[in-house]
Amino acid sequence: MSSNFVKELAPQLVEWRRTLHKLPELGFLEYITTYRLGKELISMGFTLHVGKDALDSDARMGLPATEDINAHEEKAAKWGVDAEWLEKMRGGNTGLVAIWDTGKQGDHVGFRFDIDALPINESTDESHLPTKNNFISDEKNVMHACGHDGHATIGLGVAKFISENTDSLKGRFTLLFQPAEEGGRGARAMTAKGWLDDAHRFYSGHIGVKSMPVGTIAATTKGFLASTKFNISFKGVSSHAGMHPELGKNALLAATTAANNLYGIPRHNDGVTRVNVGKLTAGSGRNIIPEDSYMEIEVRGETQEVADYMAEKATRIIRAAADMHDVECIIDPVGITEVVVCDETLIPQIQEWCKNSELITEVLPEIQVSGSEDASFMINKVQEHGGKATYMLFGTKLDYPHHHPQFDYEEDVLGVAVDTFVSILRGGSSDV
Amino acid sequence: MSSNFVKELAPQLVEWRRTLHKLPELGFLEYITTYRLGKELISMGFTLHVGKDALDSDARMGLPATEDINAHEEKAAKWGVDAEWLEKMRGGNTGLVAIWDTGKQGDHVGFRFDIDALPINESTDESHLPTKNNFISDEKNVMHACGHDGHATIGLGVAKFISENTDSLKGRFTLLFQPAEEGGRGARAMTAKGWLDDAHRFYSGHIGVKSMPVGTIAATTKGFLASTKFNISFKGVSSHAGMHPELGKNALLAATTAANNLYGIPRHNDGVTRVNVGKLTAGSGRNIIPEDSYMEIEVRGETQEVADYMAEKATRIIRAAADMHDVECIIDPVGITEVVVCDETLIPQIQEWCKNSELITEVLPEIQVSGSEDASFMINKVQEHGGKATYMLFGTKLDYPHHHPQFDYEEDVLGVAVDTFVSILRGGSSDV
Amino acid sequence: MSSNFVKELAPQLVEWRRTLHKLPELGFLEYITTYRLGKELISMGFTLHVGKDALDSDARMGLPATEDINAHEEKAAKWGVDAEWLEKMRGGNTGLVAIWDTGKQGDHVGFRFDIDALPINESTDESHLPTKNNFISDEKNVMHACGHDGHATIGLGVAKFISENTDSLKGRFTLLFQPAEEGGRGARAMTAKGWLDDAHRFYSGHIGVKSMPVGTIAATTKGFLASTKFNISFKGVSSHAGMHPELGKNALLAATTAANNLYGIPRHNDGVTRVNVGKLTAGSGRNIIPEDSYMEIEVRGETQEVADYMAEKATRIIRAAADMHDVECIIDPVGITEVVVCDETLIPQIQEWCKNSELITEVLPEIQVSGSEDASFMINKVQEHGGKATYMLFGTKLDYPHHHPQFDYEEDVLGVAVDTFVSILRGGSSDV
Amino acid sequence: MSSNFVKELAPQLVEWRRTLHKLPELGFLEYITTYRLGKELISMGFTLHVGKDALDSDARMGLPATEDINAHEEKAAKWGVDAEWLEKMRGGNTGLVAIWDTGKQGDHVGFRFDIDALPINESTDESHLPTKNNFISDEKNVMHACGHDGHATIGLGVAKFISENTDSLKGRFTLLFQPAEEGGRGARAMTAKGWLDDAHRFYSGHIGVKSMPVGTIAATTKGFLASTKFNISFKGVSSHAGMHPELGKNALLAATTAANNLYGIPRHNDGVTRVNVGKLTAGSGRNIIPEDSYMEIEVRGETQEVADYMAEKATRIIRAAADMHDVECIIDPVGITEVVVCDETLIPQIQEWCKNSELITEVLPEIQVSGSEDASFMINKVQEHGGKATYMLFGTKLDYPHHHPQFDYEEDVLGVAVDTFVSILRGGSSDV
Repeated sequence: MSSNFVKELAPQLVEWRRTLHKLPELGFLEYITTYRLGKELISMGFTLHVGKDALDSDARMGLPATEDINAHEEKAAKWGVDAEWLEKMRGGNTGLVAIWDTGKQGDHVGFRFDIDALPINESTDESHLPTKNNFISDEKNVMHACGHDGHATIGLGVAKFISENTDSLKGRFTLLFQPAEEGGRGARAMTAKGWLDDAHRFYSGHIGVKSMPVGTIAATTKGFLASTKFNISFKGVSSHAGMHPELGKNALLAATTAANNLYGIPRHNDGVTRVNVGKLTAGSGRNIIPEDSYMEIEVRGETQEVADYMAEKATRIIRAAADMHDVECIIDPVGITEVVVCDETLIPQIQEWCKNSELITEVLPEIQVSGSEDASFMINKVQEHGGKATYMLFGTKLDYPHHHPQFDYEEDVLGVAVDTFVSILRGGSSDV
Repeated sequence: MSSNFVKELAPQLVEWRRTLHKLPELGFLEYITTYRLGKELISMGFTLHVGKDALDSDARMGLPATEDINAHEEKAAKWGVDAEWLEKMRGGNTGLVAIWDTGKQGDHVGFRFDIDALPINESTDESHLPTKNNFISDEKNVMHACGHDGHATIGLGVAKFISENTDSLKGRFTLLFQPAEEGGRGARAMTAKGWLDDAHRFYSGHIGVKSMPVGTIAATTKGFLASTKFNISFKGVSSHAGMHPELGKNALLAATTAANNLYGIPRHNDGVTRVNVGKLTAGSGRNIIPEDSYMEIEVRGETQEVADYMAEKATRIIRAAADMHDVECIIDPVGITEVVVCDETLIPQIQEWCKNSELITEVLPEIQVSGSEDASFMINKVQEHGGKATYMLFGTKLDYPHHHPQFDYEEDVLGVAVDTFVSILRGGSSDV
Repeated sequence: MSSNFVKELAPQLVEWRRTLHKLPELGFLEYITTYRLGKELISMGFTLHVGKDALDSDARMGLPATEDINAHEEKAAKWGVDAEWLEKMRGGNTGLVAIWDTGKQGDHVGFRFDIDALPINESTDESHLPTKNNFISDEKNVMHACGHDGHATIGLGVAKFISENTDSLKGRFTLLFQPAEEGGRGARAMTAKGWLDDAHRFYSGHIGVKSMPVGTIAATTKGFLASTKFNISFKGVSSHAGMHPELGKNALLAATTAANNLYGIPRHNDGVTRVNVGKLTAGSGRNIIPEDSYMEIEVRGETQEVADYMAEKATRIIRAAADMHDVECIIDPVGITEVVVCDETLIPQIQEWCKNSELITEVLPEIQVSGSEDASFMINKVQEHGGKATYMLFGTKLDYPHHHPQFDYEEDVLGVAVDTFVSILRGGSSDV
Repeated sequence: MSSNFVKELAPQLVEWRRTLHKLPELGFLEYITTYRLGKELISMGFTLHVGKDALDSDARMGLPATEDINAHEEKAAKWGVDAEWLEKMRGGNTGLVAIWDTGKQGDHVGFRFDIDALPINESTDESHLPTKNNFISDEKNVMHACGHDGHATIGLGVAKFISENTDSLKGRFTLLFQPAEEGGRGARAMTAKGWLDDAHRFYSGHIGVKSMPVGTIAATTKGFLASTKFNISFKGVSSHAGMHPELGKNALLAATTAANNLYGIPRHNDGVTRVNVGKLTAGSGRNIIPEDSYMEIEVRGETQEVADYMAEKATRIIRAAADMHDVECIIDPVGITEVVVCDETLIPQIQEWCKNSELITEVLPEIQVSGSEDASFMINKVQEHGGKATYMLFGTKLDYPHHHPQFDYEEDVLGVAVDTFVSILRGGSSDV
């Protein structure tokens, strides 16, 4: 019975999760996280590919500033990350791929676990479990507020099962511990390295959705939008606003004009669209015509065509706004996600394989979400050559939504998720 | 001959100036500057009124954040500012008024010297004199980039002359060492304390204007615009931009809509107008409908009526932009300057009194400037009861404009300015 | 066999259609059209309710200007509309309801045929059938460019069948010849009169959809959006733009600010939205600050809640834009349509009843459209008390889209549509 | 005594004025007006140059639509304008130049009188003198609402004086009866023909300024702004706003975006600026993405440089707005005026020469106006080669401002203006 493995593992899952939670790292800065996960996986016997060996560096998007990378590498060195590991990860090449080959004929099955945190300051409210139980983030303005600490933990749990049950399994297993999911920046680079080019099946998933209690899981998800994220910089010319307003080239007005018009991109008849200017900063002093401005935006679409339409319109608007105010602009794409269409043929399989789990009380065939996921790159890659792929959801009560300073989840969901993947392994990769 | 006094004082002027330059302090944070100036003035024999005794606390505008005030007070204490002085200045009540009474019948003459610095990071370029000569600012992002280090120095020079020549002078002298001129935040508070309510004459001025070489001064200035400065905060409701765009109340759009419309306030037939949104920040994460935004703006007008028109229109636009996007807004006036009309009757006096100076080569009757000055409050107060007042300019070559990271001036201008005021004292307050 | 009736009627259908096409009338100005239809229906033996007897005058929306109504009434009188009829229609109360009661127990069945034309100038291109065959519109800038000439013709055909087959039918029949469908202005008023309050079944439909050839019909439609249409007037104060720009209150800027922000109403997660500013006029002379401006807008939503959200946001934006520029505004709702959910239980009935028609080659269960329909008021009214209702589509090749100056359709579709309703009558109201 | 001539002429002046007032003609459509004036001038003995002989056709700007020109030419022919005259004016080449040479050595003196009317519907209010006294405009939407009927009348009066006093005069006189002053469209074309290339002195002027009573005149004016007027057309692609919003290219949004940003062109430190979008029309039907839009705009500046700055910024904004919404745009300059600097040396001359007039009670040296005047082309041309030129004002009570449907003036001002020019002729061109 699969659930026994998980029941015994439960305290370990909580410990792993809390350790990771205490030291969250932003995307492409997961040096310590990668090192920690790697150490565990090595001890289980996995073959590892770390950092530059795990992803295609050039395919990364939205890298942190060089000084942040440097500072973080120094910190990782001080913290105790081996020099050899550090070298492999140098320059924001974090994450790792863990491989297990049973040596027996069977499916190549991929799993993806994302490991990055968010630039959010964790709540110190006493009602917040990490605060109360003393595993709150040690870092100011960095927090695992999307549950990726849990995802990484689930990955370790699955790895442990594989390593302890290799005799009863067949085929190969590729566990992708992916950096920089937030912003859709890391999956493309890991996918480009070819890990899933011959995968028969691929599973990923997320903790959450408060409509589902712990124990309820969804075999597939619907509704992920394709998205593109841009950082925009406008560069004008400053001037004293009282003495020479006519000499300025107003980068603030370029940004505000762009922002106002971006929201007005026409709706599209072929599917849902989204657009947001999430951040805008402009100007220096009150009496200076602003020389610089900066925006972080995103556009989304229900199909790739619709998403492309949004990106093209956004680009046009931004360039024209710059031109209108005679300033220069740089449009930097910093993240992309694709449309996800989970394979429906996996639904009855998953339902069948999970039906004996004591922890899984219900397997919904699908759940509707909105949002975007860069696991889409992996799913599409697998499906491209005829493989089957899905993105699952693992229910848990949430008192606060994802990305909230008080985001937290019921830790029992970790066991449910591990049990799901274990059931899938027993069901689809059993050698007994 | 007045100029001898200044020639002997010259090295002292340079020393004072450089000492002040090395430790610049922002408006209402001039704890150390005030203390240093005060110590000098006491040693000369002046009666001082410091901090809360020098200004009307409630009439200050645009105070720094409480945490900045607290941090600066700690720093001042560490640096060595006496506890008694610190107590008088506590809470951002900086600046001082120095009084000298000859005991003889004569005009009450006021002088104003502003002492605050700017939030600018001083250039480390070797061609920059303070860098080369090693008196560059010790503070990151704080710099005397408008010459107020020179103004304070001139004030000390004038004080020294008074203290050493009291026998040959008559009447009373009030020297206002004013905090927070930048942004038009301090003069109103000092004026409100009543120092100039019975002044017969009032003189202030500025180092600068590259069209005038060292030695050329202007007796009056024309063109200062009345101005109002506002900080604007918009508060909306955040929401996930992908999942629930309809639940957000977009504070970024309120700000951008306001910004775009502010520049479009109609021109006014009765005089020059100006408007600027100098700073705008909005939003947190890329995929979140922005909950908060913030703007720093200013409006100006050639007459008080025109300036009021601009302020009223700006207020209307901002409120409507908030209303349009269903967000709340706070409009906080943080600085005001008034229109300045210098007394033309002072021109021939100044020209006459300065004609024997060896340092002053030419006295222009007037010079055209634009910009705004809160000495306007003092000038208008003096003129209100029939006193005469002017704002002068002291020429110097400027390789870079005011508020530039490489702003610097020829130190000879300090002597010229002191000699101007000394000549005025000898001419208008002579008892011999 | 139902189709024989239609085959014989075919030349008559073409004649009716072309006669109506030649004299198109805009919404609430269909005086002659109503009179012509009425005369035919009387000759068939129907009981008529005309004009004010057919609709609730107060529930009409988007009435033409009084002078247009007056002019059109004069024209109708000259053309030969009886004074008595004219009196019933006076003031823009056009349209009629034709009643037939078989006197036998049976369903009360409603049909709706819309009769108004569009403000479009018909093409004089020789390839355009009405031009070539000489039944082009006699009116400048008025044209049956949406096929309502055909709809009215179909209504006459259905009426003729009823009148000639009363013995073989049972129940009651209500034929609504509705004015002012364009803009969603007439159906509400006719519905409010209560004609359908006890209807068991209701059928309406449209000629069109080029994806369906003549002979193909759809039993139901999906995708109609609820909509609200507004006319907006802004009233400011004019002023000479050179001499006194500050005295103006700019109604043009209120409109342009509103327009730009209307397109930016956030997308809604619960369904499709639409917004359009279809028309904007503002200002008089080049050198005058515009005193007046005017916009025609519409908003739509996939559900009533989403449509209401759009209308509320639009209203807020318009009011705030007026307030921003200190002008007054009048927001006049001139048209409303509701969401349509056709009864799926009608699909197999219609398919069954139509299967013997020689003219109908295929009955699609449903077709996806977008757009809005005020038959929605009637459909919702019927469904409210448990009746069944649908909106059908009758395929025809379209070389140009609806509302195009060269819009035209294959006249064979008229027979197909009549045969559809005749089949429904034979199937659902047969007394034999 | 000059004034006797005028006193006797007074009834004739009123008759001329009222006749002209009754038949106003828009710019470049002054066929009948030109013919009428020409007939009078021929009868006085002037040499005429009419239409194409009077102006450089290619230098005209902002011509009426060809169909309006054609219609007006037909009307003029019907009214009785000689075919020969009509031929000279064909194609919107209206206006004439009247030459008088005394044959004696002396200054070449130019005078300009503008003759066009405005597209304004004259008030039928009984308090309005033209209505009451029955000389209200016969034309709908055309009105002499700027006093050019009076200007033309003054021109006839001056001509009459010259023709009757040639013996006592010396030098040459060129009277320019200019078309299309409104919008700054005609003066450039007349100037380009070279009439003033050797003029020694040039006088023009305007009736008005309510601050000056009848009898008060101003020798010079200050404050005319250089201006450029543009008509803007945007061409996009229409689409059904419900069905395919994504297929439209929205010409309305291009115009509204341009309009909103035009008002925000930064103020200029070197002088007064103005900008106005006087008219905007866009779109056809409510549910159609607008394919077309049109704007009439103007920009002004206190100096030519500032005016050029405004025109360049406006052009940039319009092009970028078109680009932003992916539509095409045509920017058509339809009018230009230049800066005017009247010669101050003329002031004492005019004061001297007018001091004996019984009708002129006061000669102000200058008056401040704002607005724009295409007489600027003539003034600048004369000054270019060293001639002296001025633009004068003739006071009259105005109950309503220029360009108002009830604009009217005291007819006594006509005599004052004639007497002014007669005094100038007697003073500066006397041969006795």
